[in-house]
Amino acid sequence: MADLLTSWAIVVGAGDGRRLGDDRPKAFVGVGDEVMLAHSVRMLDGHSALDGIVLVVPEGWEEPATLLADDLVAGKVAAAVTGGSTRAASVAAGLAAVPDDADLILVHDAARPFATPALVSRVLEALGQADGAVPGVPLTDTVKRVSAGLVVETPDRSTLVAVQTPQGFRADALRRAYAQPAEVLAAATDCASLVEVAGGRVAVVEGDPANLKVTTPADLAEARRRC
Amino acid sequence: MADLLTSWAIVVGAGDGRRLGDDRPKAFVGVGDEVMLAHSVRMLDGHSALDGIVLVVPEGWEEPATLLADDLVAGKVAAAVTGGSTRAASVAAGLAAVPDDADLILVHDAARPFATPALVSRVLEALGQADGAVPGVPLTDTVKRVSAGLVVETPDRSTLVAVQTPQGFRADALRRAYAQPAEVLAAATDCASLVEVAGGRVAVVEGDPANLKVTTPADLAEARRRC
Repeated sequence: MADLLTSWAIVVGAGDGRRLGDDRPKAFVGVGDEVMLAHSVRMLDGHSALDGIVLVVPEGWEEPATLLADDLVAGKVAAAVTGGSTRAASVAAGLAAVPDDADLILVHDAARPFATPALVSRVLEALGQADGAVPGVPLTDTVKRVSAGLVVETPDRSTLVAVQTPQGFRADALRRAYAQPAEVLAAATDCASLVEVAGGRVAVVEGDPANLKVTTPADLAEARRRC
Repeated sequence: MADLLTSWAIVVGAGDGRRLGDDRPKAFVGVGDEVMLAHSVRMLDGHSALDGIVLVVPEGWEEPATLLADDLVAGKVAAAVTGGSTRAASVAAGLAAVPDDADLILVHDAARPFATPALVSRVLEALGQADGAVPGVPLTDTVKRVSAGLVVETPDRSTLVAVQTPQGFRADALRRAYAQPAEVLAAATDCASLVEVAGGRVAVVEGDPANLKVTTPADLAEARRRC
Protein backbone atom coordinates (compact mmCIF):
# COMPACT_ATOMS: atom_id res chain seq x y z
CA MET A 1 0.00 0.00 0.00
CA ALA A 2 2.66 2.46 1.07
CA ASP A 3 4.39 2.39 -2.30
CA LEU A 4 1.32 3.74 -4.10
CA LEU A 5 0.88 6.55 -1.63
CA THR A 6 2.87 9.63 -0.74
CA SER A 7 4.55 9.08 2.61
CA TRP A 8 6.36 11.58 4.79
CA ALA A 9 8.23 11.31 8.07
CA ILE A 10 8.54 13.84 10.91
CA VAL A 11 11.59 13.36 13.13
CA VAL A 12 11.05 15.02 16.49
CA GLY A 13 14.27 16.11 18.14
CA ALA A 14 13.34 19.29 19.97
CA GLY A 15 14.19 18.23 23.51
CA ASP A 16 17.13 19.53 25.52
CA GLY A 17 19.99 17.39 26.77
CA ARG A 18 19.69 18.24 30.46
CA ARG A 19 18.74 14.74 31.62
CA LEU A 20 21.76 13.44 29.71
CA GLY A 21 23.96 16.03 31.42
CA ASP A 22 24.76 17.68 28.07
CA ASP A 23 24.57 21.32 26.97
CA ARG A 24 23.56 20.35 23.44
CA PRO A 25 20.00 19.33 22.57
CA LYS A 26 19.53 15.59 22.96
CA ALA A 27 19.27 15.05 19.18
CA PHE A 28 22.74 16.57 18.72
CA VAL A 29 24.54 14.49 21.34
CA GLY A 30 27.07 12.11 19.80
CA VAL A 31 26.26 8.40 19.42
CA GLY A 32 29.03 6.55 17.59
CA ASP A 33 30.52 8.71 14.81
CA GLU A 34 27.40 10.85 14.39
CA VAL A 35 24.95 12.92 16.37
CA MET A 36 21.88 11.01 17.56
CA LEU A 37 19.55 12.66 15.02
CA ALA A 38 21.69 11.50 12.08
CA HIS A 39 20.99 7.82 12.80
CA SER A 40 17.23 8.20 12.32
CA VAL A 41 17.54 10.61 9.39
CA ARG A 42 19.93 8.32 7.51
CA MET A 43 17.66 5.31 8.02
CA LEU A 44 14.48 7.11 6.97
CA ASP A 45 16.22 8.82 4.06
CA GLY A 46 17.21 5.43 2.70
CA HIS A 47 13.74 3.89 3.00
CA SER A 48 12.18 3.46 -0.44
CA ALA A 49 8.61 4.00 0.77
CA LEU A 50 9.31 7.49 2.10
CA ASP A 51 9.10 10.59 -0.09
CA GLY A 52 10.12 13.35 2.28
CA ILE A 53 11.27 14.14 5.81
CA VAL A 54 10.72 17.08 8.13
CA LEU A 55 13.04 17.62 11.10
CA VAL A 56 11.87 19.35 14.27
CA VAL A 57 14.72 20.82 16.34
CA PRO A 58 15.19 23.40 19.09
CA GLU A 59 15.36 27.09 18.18
CA GLY A 60 18.79 27.95 16.80
CA TRP A 61 19.49 24.39 15.65
CA GLU A 62 17.66 24.55 12.32
CA GLU A 63 20.85 25.31 10.37
CA PRO A 64 22.98 22.54 11.89
CA ALA A 65 20.09 20.16 11.17
CA THR A 66 19.94 21.31 7.53
CA LEU A 67 23.71 20.93 7.12
CA LEU A 68 23.49 17.44 8.61
CA ALA A 69 20.70 16.54 6.20
CA ASP A 70 22.70 17.88 3.21
CA ASP A 71 25.34 15.24 3.90
CA LEU A 72 22.92 12.39 3.34
CA VAL A 73 22.71 10.59 0.01
CA ALA A 74 19.08 10.61 -1.08
CA GLY A 75 18.38 14.11 0.23
CA LYS A 76 14.75 13.68 1.23
CA VAL A 77 14.91 16.20 4.08
CA ALA A 78 12.70 19.09 2.96
CA ALA A 79 12.73 21.27 6.06
CA ALA A 80 14.13 21.72 9.55
CA VAL A 81 11.57 23.58 11.64
CA THR A 82 11.57 24.95 15.18
CA GLY A 83 9.96 22.82 17.87
CA GLY A 84 7.68 23.91 20.68
CA SER A 85 7.76 23.61 24.43
CA THR A 86 5.88 20.29 24.51
CA ARG A 87 6.17 17.19 22.37
CA ALA A 88 2.71 17.86 20.92
CA ALA A 89 3.68 21.41 19.95
CA SER A 90 6.79 20.07 18.24
CA VAL A 91 4.84 17.44 16.30
CA ALA A 92 2.31 20.14 15.29
CA ALA A 93 5.17 22.32 14.00
CA GLY A 94 6.46 19.40 11.93
CA LEU A 95 3.00 18.59 10.66
CA ALA A 96 2.58 22.16 9.39
CA ALA A 97 5.63 21.62 7.16
CA VAL A 98 4.41 18.34 5.62
CA PRO A 99 2.87 18.94 2.14
CA ASP A 100 -0.91 18.68 1.83
CA ASP A 101 -0.65 15.80 -0.64
CA ALA A 102 0.96 13.43 1.86
CA ASP A 103 -1.24 10.36 2.37
CA LEU A 104 0.70 8.75 5.22
CA ILE A 105 2.79 10.41 7.92
CA LEU A 106 5.28 8.76 10.23
CA VAL A 107 6.32 10.43 13.48
CA HIS A 108 9.63 9.29 14.94
CA ASP A 109 11.59 10.37 18.01
CA ALA A 110 15.22 11.29 17.37
CA ALA A 111 15.84 9.76 20.82
CA ARG A 112 15.41 6.31 19.20
CA PRO A 113 18.50 6.04 17.01
CA PHE A 114 18.20 2.29 16.36
CA ALA A 115 14.84 2.03 14.57
CA THR A 116 15.15 -0.18 11.49
CA PRO A 117 13.76 -0.02 7.92
CA ALA A 118 11.87 -3.26 8.67
CA LEU A 119 10.07 -1.56 11.56
CA VAL A 120 9.12 1.38 9.32
CA SER A 121 7.76 -1.06 6.75
CA ARG A 122 5.66 -2.91 9.34
CA VAL A 123 4.14 0.36 10.56
CA LEU A 124 3.34 1.64 7.04
CA GLU A 125 1.93 -1.73 6.01
CA ALA A 126 -0.56 -1.74 8.90
CA LEU A 127 -2.02 1.57 7.72
CA GLY A 128 -3.89 -0.38 5.04
CA GLN A 129 -6.29 -1.47 7.79
CA ALA A 130 -6.14 1.34 10.36
CA ASP A 131 -5.88 5.09 10.90
CA GLY A 132 -2.73 4.65 12.92
CA ALA A 133 -0.12 1.99 13.68
CA VAL A 134 2.34 1.79 16.56
CA PRO A 135 5.12 -0.68 17.34
CA GLY A 136 4.59 -2.43 20.68
CA VAL A 137 6.76 -4.72 22.79
CA PRO A 138 5.68 -6.90 25.73
CA LEU A 139 6.29 -5.56 29.22
CA THR A 140 8.76 -7.46 31.40
CA ASP A 141 7.65 -5.80 34.64
CA THR A 142 4.25 -5.99 36.29
CA VAL A 143 2.53 -2.60 35.98
CA LYS A 144 0.18 -1.13 38.58
CA ARG A 145 -2.17 1.82 38.54
CA VAL A 146 -1.60 3.94 41.63
CA SER A 147 -3.59 6.61 43.42
CA ALA A 148 -2.50 8.41 46.59
CA GLY A 149 0.33 5.92 47.09
CA LEU A 150 -1.88 2.83 46.97
CA VAL A 151 -2.39 0.26 44.22
CA VAL A 152 -5.83 0.62 42.64
CA GLU A 153 -5.41 -1.93 39.83
CA THR A 154 -2.95 -4.45 38.42
CA PRO A 155 -3.87 -4.60 34.72
CA ASP A 156 -3.37 -8.01 33.09
CA ARG A 157 0.18 -7.70 31.77
CA SER A 158 -0.55 -9.92 28.77
CA THR A 159 -2.94 -7.26 27.43
CA LEU A 160 -0.38 -4.43 27.67
CA VAL A 161 2.41 -3.30 25.37
CA ALA A 162 5.05 -0.58 25.69
CA VAL A 163 4.90 1.47 22.52
CA GLN A 164 7.76 2.88 20.48
CA THR A 165 8.24 5.13 17.49
CA PRO A 166 8.05 5.37 14.49
CA GLN A 167 4.28 5.65 14.77
CA GLY A 168 2.42 5.94 11.44
CA PHE A 169 -0.88 7.57 10.54
CA ARG A 170 -3.17 8.33 7.68
CA ALA A 171 -2.52 12.03 7.18
CA ASP A 172 -6.14 13.08 7.60
CA ALA A 173 -6.44 11.21 10.92
CA LEU A 174 -3.23 12.78 12.24
CA ARG A 175 -4.24 16.29 11.16
CA ARG A 176 -7.65 15.85 12.80
CA ALA A 177 -5.97 14.64 16.00
CA TYR A 178 -3.73 17.71 16.16
CA ALA A 179 -6.68 20.06 15.55
CA GLN A 180 -7.99 19.20 19.03
CA PRO A 181 -7.85 21.78 21.87
CA ALA A 182 -4.48 22.62 23.40
CA GLU A 183 -5.31 20.97 26.73
CA VAL A 184 -6.03 17.68 24.95
CA LEU A 185 -2.72 17.90 23.08
CA ALA A 186 -0.74 18.77 26.23
CA ALA A 187 -1.91 15.64 28.07
CA ALA A 188 -0.72 13.18 25.41
CA THR A 189 2.47 11.16 25.79
CA ASP A 190 2.34 9.92 22.19
CA CYS A 191 0.71 10.81 18.86
CA ALA A 192 -1.42 7.70 18.72
CA SER A 193 -3.32 8.57 21.90
CA LEU A 194 -4.48 11.80 20.22
CA VAL A 195 -5.67 9.85 17.19
CA GLU A 196 -7.45 7.42 19.56
CA VAL A 197 -9.15 10.27 21.45
CA ALA A 198 -10.29 11.69 18.11
CA GLY A 199 -11.95 8.35 17.33
CA GLY A 200 -9.26 6.81 15.13
CA ARG A 201 -8.51 3.10 14.95
CA VAL A 202 -4.90 2.33 15.94
CA ALA A 203 -3.22 -0.99 15.21
CA VAL A 204 -0.31 -2.43 17.18
CA VAL A 205 2.49 -4.03 15.17
CA GLU A 206 5.46 -6.00 16.45
CA GLY A 207 7.99 -3.60 17.94
CA ASP A 208 11.72 -4.13 18.21
CA PRO A 209 13.30 -4.67 21.66
CA ALA A 210 16.56 -3.23 20.25
CA ASN A 211 14.81 0.07 19.43
CA LEU A 212 16.21 1.76 22.54
CA LYS A 213 14.88 5.12 23.73
CA VAL A 214 17.68 7.32 25.05
CA THR A 215 16.33 9.05 28.17
CA THR A 216 18.97 8.71 30.89
CA PRO A 217 22.79 8.81 30.95
CA ALA A 218 22.69 5.00 31.34
CA ASP A 219 20.65 4.74 28.11
CA LEU A 220 23.18 6.98 26.34
CA ALA A 221 26.05 4.81 27.54
CA GLU A 222 24.21 1.74 26.25
CA ALA A 223 23.54 3.43 22.88
CA ARG A 224 27.23 4.32 22.54
CA ARG A 225 28.26 0.75 23.33
CA ARG A 226 26.14 -0.47 20.43
CA CYS A 227 27.87 1.71 17.85
CA MET B 1 8.23 -0.99 62.99
CA ALA B 2 10.11 -3.81 61.32
CA ASP B 3 12.65 -4.07 64.14
CA LEU B 4 9.99 -4.99 66.70
CA LEU B 5 8.56 -7.70 64.49
CA THR B 6 9.85 -10.99 63.17
CA SER B 7 10.67 -10.56 59.48
CA TRP B 8 11.55 -13.23 56.97
CA ALA B 9 12.53 -13.13 53.30
CA ILE B 10 11.80 -15.63 50.54
CA VAL B 11 14.21 -15.49 47.59
CA VAL B 12 12.63 -17.01 44.50
CA GLY B 13 15.17 -18.47 42.09
CA ALA B 14 13.39 -21.48 40.63
CA GLY B 15 13.45 -20.47 36.96
CA ASP B 16 15.59 -22.09 34.29
CA GLY B 17 18.29 -20.32 32.31
CA ARG B 18 16.92 -21.04 28.84
CA ARG B 19 16.16 -17.43 27.90
CA LEU B 20 19.70 -16.56 28.95
CA GLY B 21 21.07 -19.37 26.79
CA ASP B 22 22.46 -21.16 29.83
CA ASP B 23 22.12 -24.77 31.00
CA ARG B 24 22.17 -23.75 34.64
CA PRO B 25 19.11 -22.31 36.39
CA LYS B 26 19.03 -18.51 36.09
CA ALA B 27 19.81 -18.01 39.78
CA PHE B 28 23.08 -19.98 39.34
CA VAL B 29 24.38 -18.08 36.33
CA GLY B 30 27.49 -16.06 37.13
CA VAL B 31 27.30 -12.30 37.63
CA GLY B 32 30.65 -10.86 38.66
CA ASP B 33 32.51 -13.23 41.00
CA GLU B 34 29.36 -14.94 42.26
CA VAL B 35 26.25 -16.66 41.00
CA MET B 36 23.24 -14.38 40.63
CA LEU B 37 21.45 -15.76 43.70
CA ALA B 38 24.42 -14.93 45.97
CA HIS B 39 24.01 -11.17 45.41
CA SER B 40 20.49 -11.08 46.84
CA VAL B 41 21.22 -13.56 49.63
CA ARG B 42 24.29 -11.64 50.79
CA MET B 43 22.37 -8.35 50.86
CA LEU B 44 19.34 -9.78 52.71
CA ASP B 45 21.54 -11.74 55.10
CA GLY B 46 23.28 -8.51 56.10
CA HIS B 47 20.06 -6.55 56.68
CA SER B 48 19.50 -5.99 60.41
CA ALA B 49 15.69 -6.06 60.15
CA LEU B 50 15.59 -9.60 58.75
CA ASP B 51 15.55 -12.68 60.95
CA GLY B 52 15.58 -15.49 58.46
CA ILE B 53 15.70 -16.36 54.76
CA VAL B 54 14.20 -19.18 52.69
CA LEU B 55 15.60 -19.93 49.25
CA VAL B 56 13.45 -21.46 46.51
CA VAL B 57 15.46 -23.23 43.80
CA PRO B 58 14.89 -25.81 41.05
CA GLU B 59 14.81 -29.49 41.94
CA GLY B 60 18.34 -30.79 42.40
CA TRP B 61 19.79 -27.36 43.27
CA GLU B 62 18.85 -27.36 46.97
CA GLU B 63 22.30 -28.56 48.04
CA PRO B 64 24.30 -26.03 45.98
CA ALA B 65 22.01 -23.34 47.40
CA THR B 66 22.67 -24.52 50.95
CA LEU B 67 26.43 -24.61 50.37
CA LEU B 68 26.28 -21.09 48.96
CA ALA B 69 24.35 -19.91 52.01
CA ASP B 70 26.86 -21.54 54.37
CA ASP B 71 29.55 -19.24 53.00
CA LEU B 72 27.72 -16.14 54.16
CA VAL B 73 28.61 -14.40 57.38
CA ALA B 74 25.38 -13.97 59.35
CA GLY B 75 23.93 -17.32 58.31
CA LYS B 76 20.27 -16.44 58.27
CA VAL B 77 19.37 -18.89 55.52
CA ALA B 78 17.18 -21.48 57.21
CA ALA B 79 16.14 -23.61 54.25
CA ALA B 80 16.53 -24.17 50.51
CA VAL B 81 13.31 -25.65 49.18
CA THR B 82 12.24 -26.96 45.79
CA GLY B 83 10.26 -24.59 43.56
CA GLY B 84 7.22 -25.34 41.46
CA SER B 85 6.36 -24.98 37.80
CA THR B 86 4.97 -21.46 38.16
CA ARG B 87 6.18 -18.44 40.11
CA ALA B 88 3.16 -18.70 42.41
CA ALA B 89 3.88 -22.37 43.15
CA SER B 90 7.47 -21.46 44.00
CA VAL B 91 6.42 -18.65 46.33
CA ALA B 92 3.93 -21.02 47.99
CA ALA B 93 6.73 -23.56 48.53
CA GLY B 94 8.85 -20.88 50.14
CA LEU B 95 5.96 -19.67 52.28
CA ALA B 96 5.45 -23.17 53.66
CA ALA B 97 9.02 -23.06 55.02
CA VAL B 98 8.64 -19.69 56.77
CA PRO B 99 7.97 -20.15 60.53
CA ASP B 100 4.46 -19.43 61.78
CA ASP B 101 5.69 -16.66 64.07
CA ALA B 102 6.90 -14.46 61.21
CA ASP B 103 5.03 -11.13 61.21
CA LEU B 104 6.36 -9.70 57.95
CA ILE B 105 7.48 -11.57 54.83
CA LEU B 106 9.50 -10.19 51.94
CA VAL B 107 9.45 -11.92 48.56
CA HIS B 108 12.37 -11.18 46.28
CA ASP B 109 13.33 -12.45 42.83
CA ALA B 110 16.87 -13.81 42.54
CA ALA B 111 16.77 -12.31 39.02
CA ARG B 112 17.20 -8.86 40.63
CA PRO B 113 20.78 -9.03 41.94
CA PHE B 114 21.11 -5.27 42.60
CA ALA B 115 18.39 -4.65 45.19
CA THR B 116 19.75 -2.54 48.06
CA PRO B 117 19.31 -2.58 51.86
CA ALA B 118 17.71 0.88 51.57
CA LEU B 119 15.05 -0.54 49.27
CA VAL B 120 14.34 -3.38 51.72
CA SER B 121 13.99 -0.82 54.52
CA ARG B 122 11.54 1.32 52.51
CA VAL B 123 9.37 -1.71 51.79
CA LEU B 124 9.35 -2.94 55.42
CA GLU B 125 8.66 0.56 56.71
CA ALA B 126 5.55 0.93 54.55
CA LEU B 127 4.03 -2.20 56.13
CA GLY B 128 3.15 -0.09 59.16
CA GLN B 129 0.28 1.36 57.09
CA ALA B 130 -0.57 -1.41 54.63
CA ASP B 131 -0.93 -5.16 54.10
CA GLY B 132 1.64 -5.08 51.32
CA ALA B 133 4.26 -2.75 49.89
CA VAL B 134 5.92 -2.81 46.46
CA PRO B 135 8.70 -0.68 44.96
CA GLY B 136 7.56 1.16 41.84
CA VAL B 137 9.39 3.20 39.22
CA PRO B 138 7.87 5.55 36.62
CA LEU B 139 7.41 4.20 33.10
CA THR B 140 9.47 5.79 30.34
CA ASP B 141 7.38 4.36 27.50
CA THR B 142 3.74 5.00 26.78
CA VAL B 143 1.74 1.84 27.57
CA LYS B 144 -1.37 0.72 25.67
CA ARG B 145 -3.97 -1.91 26.35
CA VAL B 146 -4.48 -4.04 23.28
CA SER B 147 -7.19 -6.40 22.10
CA ALA B 148 -7.18 -8.28 18.78
CA GLY B 149 -4.27 -6.16 17.54
CA LEU B 150 -5.97 -2.82 18.16
CA VAL B 151 -5.44 -0.26 20.91
CA VAL B 152 -8.37 -0.21 23.31
CA GLU B 153 -6.94 2.24 25.87
CA THR B 154 -3.91 4.39 26.59
CA PRO B 155 -3.85 4.61 30.39
CA ASP B 156 -2.53 7.91 31.78
CA ARG B 157 1.18 7.13 32.16
CA SER B 158 1.52 9.38 35.21
CA THR B 159 -0.76 7.01 37.16
CA LEU B 160 1.28 3.90 36.33
CA VAL B 161 4.38 2.37 37.86
CA ALA B 162 6.49 -0.63 36.92
CA VAL B 163 6.91 -2.72 40.03
CA GLN B 164 9.98 -4.50 41.31
CA THR B 165 10.94 -6.84 44.10
CA PRO B 166 11.48 -7.11 47.06
CA GLN B 167 7.75 -6.92 47.77
CA GLY B 168 6.78 -7.03 51.43
CA PHE B 169 3.65 -8.25 53.20
CA ARG B 170 2.08 -8.78 56.57
CA ALA B 171 2.38 -12.53 56.94
CA ASP B 172 -1.33 -13.11 57.46
CA ALA B 173 -2.23 -11.16 54.31
CA LEU B 174 0.31 -13.09 52.23
CA ARG B 175 -0.81 -16.47 53.58
CA ARG B 176 -4.46 -15.58 52.86
CA ALA B 177 -3.50 -14.53 49.33
CA TYR B 178 -1.77 -17.85 48.65
CA ALA B 179 -4.74 -19.82 50.02
CA GLN B 180 -6.79 -18.75 46.98
CA PRO B 181 -7.70 -21.30 44.26
CA ALA B 182 -4.96 -22.53 41.92
CA GLU B 183 -6.41 -20.72 38.90
CA VAL B 184 -6.23 -17.39 40.73
CA LEU B 185 -2.61 -18.06 41.71
CA ALA B 186 -1.62 -19.11 38.19
CA ALA B 187 -2.81 -15.82 36.66
CA ALA B 188 -0.68 -13.57 38.88
CA THR B 189 2.53 -11.96 37.67
CA ASP B 190 3.47 -10.78 41.15
CA CYS B 191 2.65 -11.51 44.80
CA ALA B 192 1.03 -8.15 45.43
CA SER B 193 -1.71 -8.74 42.87
CA LEU B 194 -2.80 -11.83 44.84
CA VAL B 195 -2.93 -9.79 48.02
CA GLU B 196 -4.93 -7.13 46.14
CA VAL B 197 -7.40 -9.72 44.80
CA ALA B 198 -7.81 -11.05 48.34
CA GLY B 199 -8.81 -7.53 49.47
CA GLY B 200 -5.45 -6.37 50.88
CA ARG B 201 -4.24 -2.80 50.81
CA VAL B 202 -0.93 -2.47 48.94
CA ALA B 203 1.29 0.63 49.15
CA VAL B 204 3.75 1.72 46.48
CA VAL B 205 7.16 2.93 47.68
CA GLU B 206 9.90 4.53 45.64
CA GLY B 207 11.67 1.86 43.59
CA ASP B 208 15.23 1.92 42.36
CA PRO B 209 15.92 2.33 38.63
CA ALA B 210 19.22 0.47 39.15
CA ASN B 211 17.34 -2.60 40.47
CA LEU B 212 17.69 -4.40 37.12
CA LYS B 213 15.69 -7.55 36.38
CA VAL B 214 17.74 -10.06 34.41
CA THR B 215 15.44 -11.55 31.77
CA THR B 216 17.31 -11.49 28.46
CA PRO B 217 20.95 -12.08 27.42
CA ALA B 218 21.23 -8.26 27.01
CA ASP B 219 20.14 -7.81 30.64
CA LEU B 220 22.73 -10.38 31.74
CA ALA B 221 25.46 -8.56 29.81
CA GLU B 222 24.40 -5.31 31.47
CA ALA B 223 24.41 -6.96 34.93
CA ARG B 224 27.92 -8.32 34.32
CA ARG B 225 29.17 -4.89 33.23
CA ARG B 226 28.02 -3.46 36.57
CA CYS B 227 30.05 -5.89 38.67
